[in-house]
Amino acid sequence: MRIPFIGLLLLLSVAAFSPARAQSDSQRIHRLLTDQVDAWNRGDIEGFMKGYWNSDSTEFVSGGALVRGYREVLARYHKSYDTREKMGRLEFDELVVRKISAAAAIATGIWRLYRATDQPWGRFTLVIEKKPEGWRITHDHTSSATK
Amino acid sequence: MRIPFIGLLLLLSVAAFSPARAQSDSQRIHRLLTDQVDAWNRGDIEGFMKGYWNSDSTEFVSGGALVRGYREVLARYHKSYDTREKMGRLEFDELVVRKISAAAAIATGIWRLYRATDQPWGRFTLVIEKKPEGWRITHDHTSSATK
Repeated sequence: MRIPFIGLLLLLSVAAFSPARAQSDSQRIHRLLTDQVDAWNRGDIEGFMKGYWNSDSTEFVSGGALVRGYREVLARYHKSYDTREKMGRLEFDELVVRKISAAAAIATGIWRLYRATDQPWGRFTLVIEKKPEGWRITHDHTSSATK
Repeated sequence: MRIPFIGLLLLLSVAAFSPARAQSDSQRIHRLLTDQVDAWNRGDIEGFMKGYWNSDSTEFVSGGALVRGYREVLARYHKSYDTREKMGRLEFDELVVRKISAAAAIATGIWRLYRATDQPWGRFTLVIEKKPEGWRITHDHTSSATK
């Protein structure tokens, strides 16, 4: 059987580009969270916030407080972490991403902040949903084990 | 136009029984959580646990600990609340249920325990999924505002 030249070109294109392009949703979500950690660790809170859905209904729950709205969550981060010393170095541990539908996933894990004076840590549960702009955190429940 | 007798019967059946039967998912989930509160307040931890999915993968996150498995979560509740005094009276507040797919919802709210010596409270985020046996909590992140 002869493979027409155009067919051969198509086959080669698929072989060359698909593995790189065909990121799974799980890979995209892991990447979203890795990008957040990288942004945090260069002191870039705006960059960190790109993991969240830019919406008035995005929610952040922590220590009894519920903050609703992307701008409000950003303001809370700016207020709680107004110096590089307070931001420290962020690490995520025991990260598990579980798809619960075609357009929704739950990510759970441990957060740790390495700072000069303390090393707070705790757990987070993230609801991550597929939006037109990509996978974004729509709800974040973060709790502390150390205070 | 004549409606055949059998058709009329069908119409009447639908009119008579559908509103009562056609509980929405949101109503079912609210009922699940109300039943949990009622069970707690009669000291029935096994009844309270019926809101959770009976599975080894059911998760409960609180205070830095992740407990995995229905039996393990039940054991934790029995250990933490081994007297009626410790159980106190449970109330849920600011309860919001949001469907995120045909078979998954997120419920958020405030929990409060009214006890003789203290009134701890905090927030919860529940992942609730539609299983063959009904809507069940598959992941619970509960945090405390008071300790």
